[in-house]
Amino acid sequence: MTRTPTGDLIRPNRKTNGVGVQAEDTRICVVMVGLPARGKSLIAQKVTRYLHWLSIPSKIFNVGQYRRSETPAPSASFFATSNPEGERLRRAAAEAAVNDMIKWFQRGAGLIAILDATNSTKERRRWIQNRCAAEGIQTMFVESKCDDPDLIMSNIREVKATSPDYKGQDPEVAAQDFLARIQNYEKVYETIDEDELDLTYVKLIDVGQRVIINQIKDYLQSRVVYYLMNLHIKPRSIWLSRHGESTFNLEGKIGGDADISERGEAYARSLPDLVRRCGDGRKLTVWTSTLKRTIQTARFLTFEKLEWKALDELDSGVCDGLTYADIEEQYPEDFKARDEDKYNYRYLGGESYRDVVIRLEPIIMELERSENILIVTHQAILRCIYAYFMNVAQEKSPWMEVPLHTLIKLTPKAYSTHEERLKADIPAVSTWRGKGSSAKHAEPTDEERNSMGKNVGSGH
Amino acid sequence: MTRTPTGDLIRPNRKTNGVGVQAEDTRICVVMVGLPARGKSLIAQKVTRYLHWLSIPSKIFNVGQYRRSETPAPSASFFATSNPEGERLRRAAAEAAVNDMIKWFQRGAGLIAILDATNSTKERRRWIQNRCAAEGIQTMFVESKCDDPDLIMSNIREVKATSPDYKGQDPEVAAQDFLARIQNYEKVYETIDEDELDLTYVKLIDVGQRVIINQIKDYLQSRVVYYLMNLHIKPRSIWLSRHGESTFNLEGKIGGDADISERGEAYARSLPDLVRRCGDGRKLTVWTSTLKRTIQTARFLTFEKLEWKALDELDSGVCDGLTYADIEEQYPEDFKARDEDKYNYRYLGGESYRDVVIRLEPIIMELERSENILIVTHQAILRCIYAYFMNVAQEKSPWMEVPLHTLIKLTPKAYSTHEERLKADIPAVSTWRGKGSSAKHAEPTDEERNSMGKNVGSGH
Repeated sequence: MTRTPTGDLIRPNRKTNGVGVQAEDTRICVVMVGLPARGKSLIAQKVTRYLHWLSIPSKIFNVGQYRRSETPAPSASFFATSNPEGERLRRAAAEAAVNDMIKWFQRGAGLIAILDATNSTKERRRWIQNRCAAEGIQTMFVESKCDDPDLIMSNIREVKATSPDYKGQDPEVAAQDFLARIQNYEKVYETIDEDELDLTYVKLIDVGQRVIINQIKDYLQSRVVYYLMNLHIKPRSIWLSRHGESTFNLEGKIGGDADISERGEAYARSLPDLVRRCGDGRKLTVWTSTLKRTIQTARFLTFEKLEWKALDELDSGVCDGLTYADIEEQYPEDFKARDEDKYNYRYLGGESYRDVVIRLEPIIMELERSENILIVTHQAILRCIYAYFMNVAQEKSPWMEVPLHTLIKLTPKAYSTHEERLKADIPAVSTWRGKGSSAKHAEPTDEERNSMGKNVGSGH
Repeated sequence: MTRTPTGDLIRPNRKTNGVGVQAEDTRICVVMVGLPARGKSLIAQKVTRYLHWLSIPSKIFNVGQYRRSETPAPSASFFATSNPEGERLRRAAAEAAVNDMIKWFQRGAGLIAILDATNSTKERRRWIQNRCAAEGIQTMFVESKCDDPDLIMSNIREVKATSPDYKGQDPEVAAQDFLARIQNYEKVYETIDEDELDLTYVKLIDVGQRVIINQIKDYLQSRVVYYLMNLHIKPRSIWLSRHGESTFNLEGKIGGDADISERGEAYARSLPDLVRRCGDGRKLTVWTSTLKRTIQTARFLTFEKLEWKALDELDSGVCDGLTYADIEEQYPEDFKARDEDKYNYRYLGGESYRDVVIRLEPIIMELERSENILIVTHQAILRCIYAYFMNVAQEKSPWMEVPLHTLIKLTPKAYSTHEERLKADIPAVSTWRGKGSSAKHAEPTDEERNSMGKNVGSGH
């Protein structure tokens, strides 16, 4: 620490993670509340994926997993209030999860923990609130309340039939047992109500049709609430494509605002048909960047189109318009530094992948709200969007291969995102460059290519 | 319109205004609901200011103003339910406001209208809902509910004593009459409740302590809700300063990432004292950009500091590092185009003021949530932030003078923002350039300088 001219201590600067100002000692426990099959685990996983993408360390503590280590495959009667042994074991699991969570916070491992369990009584919630308050941890209760029998049954079928509690059992029998388990919970379930106005909570009723927000104060809490407000569960897909091959791609140059090449033009002409082949006739909205190569690529699509500056390619600053060979020659230190930590490396006068994620945050929020969107944009931007949906680690996402002239269709499912790739039969140069490789664009090896789905290798 | 290779019609591209995707035919009537003195007009004005800053055309239709043209200074008895003539006149005022609003939408004049009135009965709300639905206008009801007598009385004192209804009257008499008027409304007031679950509404209880959100579907609606969630009414100020004079300023160059000059350094050293003189000893948080000149300027402040990339100077693209004379010589067309529409002019490879506003939106949201913030940033960025708080028109904001070595303190009040400027006694070059002037930085004339508060003249 240094001092001002008048001798006061000066704190070091901190960089914002771009999602706002957060006291360094923030510790929030998001406590899920709700009957089984109300999408609690789904919400917990989406929130952690979003936070992780924003570089906010978070972790789910799933009480069911703790309980399972003692009671691997319980029948519905285990969850009956008349079963004191079941009650005791479930309480012990909750305590084990909360203890581990507190240790996790004490280690300084993260900012947000999610306690995934039914937490269906006022007494249980008060106990969690008191445990957390004693450790200086804020609590935010997130209740998912839903009485639509169709929604509940579809959740039971999709998710619970694959639950570890019912491994190897007949799905119909499992579903019936699970319904009986829910009925046991219903007997004691208390929704969050006027008795709990001192708590910070969000109540999501019928998947966001109605939302009640109480005592939200903290910035990170408000971000999570806004994210929750924007989630929907209508089935939809997101289509992603890079622009068609550009004249800069042909010359191996990065950045710029070049036109598409002849082959890029052929891709643009083929795109409407490519979309038709995997679009099931759905009406899409097309988003492009403001750069010519994406607008030219999208121009034969008949859907409504929107240009976003936030979708412009990663700004390579002083290196804009150079080839990798130029960069290696003119900025050898930078070339090396970028290989070492590509996610955080910021081009001189330009951007890092981390910077791009920050400016893409409103795009992700929009995508969560929207139904069917086709995005025509650039390699680094697609990597960041893809990383959000496919939960790709930061150290890997900047190296993923996203080939030219290929349409990617992502379909979010309950606990994962389904991916299809449709390659147009139109050749293009490769713009992929392996980590630590020489300063050339190259074709990835078969091995590298095969690991593509697992998100290794390639360059911007 | 053109056609695809297969003959389908192609729609023209639209540019997003950066606050998301909005169907072109969106028409939303925000209907304020609540007893008098619950901050409805304040909320209405803040929302329109925010929307206007984001280039979303909106307008307030204040029923009280319509009523006043017939009944300029009514006493409380005018608002008694037992007064059929008062009832008839108030109903007529509501009809006149709604009719004008519908005409405003029909003219295509805007996307969001705000109907500012008590709208305190279910019957009145249903009538508005039906009138709007018949015209294809969505309604979103925003109720402000507050039972804290201190808050209500402070609202009555601050705002209502200056109401046109009580012009020239003794403030104490006015306050008493106003309390009687509120009691007349309380007799018939119906809060939005379970009978109205089919309506889209937001209920703000005790200034955002508790928020109930029902049936929000549309993107713009969700933006408005998020904005409303973030408002608070704790007294606070925002301090703004440009970085100290930089070596680029001395050379008349724009952009870059230069160090501060000797005089800039002197400003940095004087800043803690300057802040102390107008900071009332309050604990501030300091936000800087990621560029050296702002970090250097803030470095003697003892408060917590945060670097935001979103606060970096307007990117001047190919013109970065040039003087205005260079730009006039090398890009004469651009130089002229920028003078003609400075707000929308986007530097080749860089940004426009419009682009800057989009990336500042999260900063504004943060500022609305936060208490006391000191921002050390750049000329164009300060102009945009200042324009938000002071409601400066787009055609004027890029020309405002924001001198070097001057601390600006903004204090939001109910219906306006109070401004103080504190000039450090440290000389600096002027970076101001008048519209249509030669390509030089110059001192503004006395006349131009005097109109500074009224936001005329100067350059980035």
